[in-house]
Amino acid sequence: MKKKEIDTVKVFALGGVGEIGKNMYCVEIDSEIFIVDAGLMFPEEEMFGIDIVIPDITYLVENKERVKGLFLTHGHEDHIGGIVYVLRKLDIPVYGTKLTNGLVKEKLGEAGMLGRVDLRTIDSNATVEFDTTTVSFFKTTHSIPDAVGVCFHTSQGAIVYTGDFKFDQTPIGNNGSDIGKMAQIGNEGVLCLLSDSTNAERPGYTGSEREVGLEISKVFYNSEGRIIVASFASNVHRIQQVFDAAYETGRKVAVVGRSMVKVVDIAYNLGYLNIPDGMLISLQDVDNYPEKKVTILTTGSQGEPMAALSRMARQAHKQISIRKGDTVIIAASPIPGNETSVSRTIDLLFRAGADVVYYGEKKVHVSGHGSQEELKLMLNLMKPKYFLPVHGEFRMQKAHARLAQDVGIHSDRIFITEKGEVISFTDGEAKPAGKVPAGNVLIDGLGVGDVGNIVLRDRKMLSQDGILVVVVTLGKEEKKIISGPEIISRGFVYVRESEALIEKSTDIVRTIVEQSIKEYSIEWSTLKQNIRELLGQFLFEKTKRKPMILPIIMEV
Amino acid sequence: MKKKEIDTVKVFALGGVGEIGKNMYCVEIDSEIFIVDAGLMFPEEEMFGIDIVIPDITYLVENKERVKGLFLTHGHEDHIGGIVYVLRKLDIPVYGTKLTNGLVKEKLGEAGMLGRVDLRTIDSNATVEFDTTTVSFFKTTHSIPDAVGVCFHTSQGAIVYTGDFKFDQTPIGNNGSDIGKMAQIGNEGVLCLLSDSTNAERPGYTGSEREVGLEISKVFYNSEGRIIVASFASNVHRIQQVFDAAYETGRKVAVVGRSMVKVVDIAYNLGYLNIPDGMLISLQDVDNYPEKKVTILTTGSQGEPMAALSRMARQAHKQISIRKGDTVIIAASPIPGNETSVSRTIDLLFRAGADVVYYGEKKVHVSGHGSQEELKLMLNLMKPKYFLPVHGEFRMQKAHARLAQDVGIHSDRIFITEKGEVISFTDGEAKPAGKVPAGNVLIDGLGVGDVGNIVLRDRKMLSQDGILVVVVTLGKEEKKIISGPEIISRGFVYVRESEALIEKSTDIVRTIVEQSIKEYSIEWSTLKQNIRELLGQFLFEKTKRKPMILPIIMEV
Repeated sequence: MKKKEIDTVKVFALGGVGEIGKNMYCVEIDSEIFIVDAGLMFPEEEMFGIDIVIPDITYLVENKERVKGLFLTHGHEDHIGGIVYVLRKLDIPVYGTKLTNGLVKEKLGEAGMLGRVDLRTIDSNATVEFDTTTVSFFKTTHSIPDAVGVCFHTSQGAIVYTGDFKFDQTPIGNNGSDIGKMAQIGNEGVLCLLSDSTNAERPGYTGSEREVGLEISKVFYNSEGRIIVASFASNVHRIQQVFDAAYETGRKVAVVGRSMVKVVDIAYNLGYLNIPDGMLISLQDVDNYPEKKVTILTTGSQGEPMAALSRMARQAHKQISIRKGDTVIIAASPIPGNETSVSRTIDLLFRAGADVVYYGEKKVHVSGHGSQEELKLMLNLMKPKYFLPVHGEFRMQKAHARLAQDVGIHSDRIFITEKGEVISFTDGEAKPAGKVPAGNVLIDGLGVGDVGNIVLRDRKMLSQDGILVVVVTLGKEEKKIISGPEIISRGFVYVRESEALIEKSTDIVRTIVEQSIKEYSIEWSTLKQNIRELLGQFLFEKTKRKPMILPIIMEV
Repeated sequence: MKKKEIDTVKVFALGGVGEIGKNMYCVEIDSEIFIVDAGLMFPEEEMFGIDIVIPDITYLVENKERVKGLFLTHGHEDHIGGIVYVLRKLDIPVYGTKLTNGLVKEKLGEAGMLGRVDLRTIDSNATVEFDTTTVSFFKTTHSIPDAVGVCFHTSQGAIVYTGDFKFDQTPIGNNGSDIGKMAQIGNEGVLCLLSDSTNAERPGYTGSEREVGLEISKVFYNSEGRIIVASFASNVHRIQQVFDAAYETGRKVAVVGRSMVKVVDIAYNLGYLNIPDGMLISLQDVDNYPEKKVTILTTGSQGEPMAALSRMARQAHKQISIRKGDTVIIAASPIPGNETSVSRTIDLLFRAGADVVYYGEKKVHVSGHGSQEELKLMLNLMKPKYFLPVHGEFRMQKAHARLAQDVGIHSDRIFITEKGEVISFTDGEAKPAGKVPAGNVLIDGLGVGDVGNIVLRDRKMLSQDGILVVVVTLGKEEKKIISGPEIISRGFVYVRESEALIEKSTDIVRTIVEQSIKEYSIEWSTLKQNIRELLGQFLFEKTKRKPMILPIIMEV
């Protein structure tokens, strides 16, 4: 490993700390900047109408000549979902493992950027040389194959980012963790470890993926009807286990749902899925097989209303409807925020007559993130001088910090940073070193960052009590109302149930406008303000609601 | 027990089946109708702007002469929260235990209805006689004291409704279940049991409230700073345990938050809370005591942004701010839907420097509802001929039905009903007997039921992409545009970032209107439709958003 003498290493997160999602970490070694991961986050509840959220990369754009590369740890959306937006602004090489790059290619293709990106495939044995550092990788176990951690070797010691990981002593396929290499990195000296806090509050060990396979297999052996399995498309090991169970019990498999079809295709073509010849059938052919020969592998494990599973459940899918005799396995747990939609889908499935096997009742899901004992194992393997808990809400970072103290890292050497907060290392000693710009960039449709607080505040207000538009046309010459006031409401009350209310509101507005004319003081902003206030007061008294009031004055 | 020969018993739920909340069950014995509970439900995610939801009581209002009484099982909002709305429409006696009625009085007082309601206090030994039935009660254990189940004795056997219950072998205070009486009711013959399905998916037994007390006590013995405990105000036993722990460790207690102050007051005055003299201090006096002598008992365990706890956490409470050295116990688990707000509050507390003890990490909460073994015990005590699982989503009712089959009730004798579905019993035999009107009545401000699907659909649409109001004034005589088109947007895009977009939109509208005038076909509804469609198309192409478009045409 090249270890050129360097002066300063800076480490900071642009996303992924104080939140779950949009992971993006930066390592700046003297003049060279390296990025690890470029994730997205799904909008929080009050981000009305927003599709996705990505990190603010102002700092990287401002220093784009110094950015040397983007390293990807694995192919989940919270680690690669923002890549298109990043690569529109930065022209840098991207390093990822085979499966990760397969998924990235799909994204770049959809965005019409495939030819323009320098995508380099690495495996966990690769090293990449830069002026200031050598970058190496280590295999980790996660709920998608081909996950790696990243290690920046410097003369002050290594900066290590784990990515998402768990330790699974009985993994599926080639998904083990390279514990030996982790120990070796630790023995060579880790200056700073950034490690996954997702499950830092969970005691003990996370279950093995194999347990899920056993549970799925049990259902396959005990079901006479069709079996429908919903899972995360990216959980290739779980999908493999579904194929295995189907094979053992002589069932065919039909794959449904855009992302499921896509991932199965990519994973199969890259050699990450083993599917016996003749096993895949098309959805159209399902009815040509006896029920007990049929498996349907689908998206929709999060209860997404438009995904295949919920459409099948409410008999709104073109080809498949759930019916009595079907067994549905929801091989996933609800992501926080999706509890209601998942619960609703389970209900729909039961109502449609299916037997439903789901998390909570049966062990048909295990987390892809290590629990407390695994996090401590990682800390003990890496023996870092400094520690930055990442991936998670503040309280999870805090819990992870406590674990680090338990294994002997002094609290002075643990930094719970916010997005953009820089930790700088000189001569092997760390200190906080200010902030770079960081925050949420909201994406709504084609707009990147054009929806901000005002728009969101308006949407929230509109969602609560609707809007009343008040239009009045004034004659410039005549100094009187020529037409209106007309009041139109949306999302406030049924008009037919509130005719009297609207009529009275119209009177109030007319009085305000006429008063204003009489006093020869048609200052429009004041007039509008008066309408908003007085009408607002009246409506609140009558209804205890506060619709948005939008006065429009036309002059002719 | 009087057991006059009766012909028909009908049983149906107006709320509480296929959902969690707004419990309301009806037993109709020949000509007499009895109601049990009158709860509310908090709005689901897509019920934008709605405050609360209550059952549709059309059937009861239409038959109000025959409604003989409302029985209350306990004082939780999902069982009594709709009472004001029901008693505005029905003039009937209300039967409840002492604490339940104490809480009901508060509600009636706030609604100015106290003198007008015939509120009768019963205890679990009471019986109430009617022409067709004798009503008796049995003590149950729940997360509020003074909970009872209700039993309607008829010549065909008893109709039993459990209310919410668990079995707790080490309850706090006088909160044990009257198992003997349950067994006796069972031995005398239960025609139909309606039992609580809330935890029907949860294996084993629910923990004892005493375990929570031990955990709370442990924190009190180990903390040097102030202790802040957030809990459900109605969980009087838990509150008692907080007072006990404070007493043992020589701390004073200040009570904060409107509902907490109210419930502590009611429970204390009715003898359900034992508070040693001199132990309560006012919030203003907190700073006069050393930190290790202070306990603050507060609302906000669900992370409600306006409740005392979150305000203290974000330093927005008038008297108390969370600071380093404080220990906060959140002695509650998040109600489904509240996970995000609770999680956010925990983060805020940690960021403010507090140590936070919360569910998941420590056993500072147990459910008030029995798990599978307890539900089976209830079924075995009551030995009902017929069984209706109630309280819960369909899947929970389904899980409860499976438990009933496990203890030997044939599936033909189990009915999973929807709201309004009537089960009728004649000569001890049950059959489905049609439906009475049932559904959700949405309450928004002062409006009861005036917000329906159209208003909610509008609010949802407004919340996603906002609104564009398009105003144009036409001259009747001149047959031309006199003023406008003017376009005002709210919740769509920042106007300053989208001037070009709005300008082009204005052009599009102008063209449509002028075209329409030129063709001498100013059919307004067609014109408006054209504006909505063509402008909508244009905006979707440019932004991939679909704002509501509201064309307003003024004529002068």
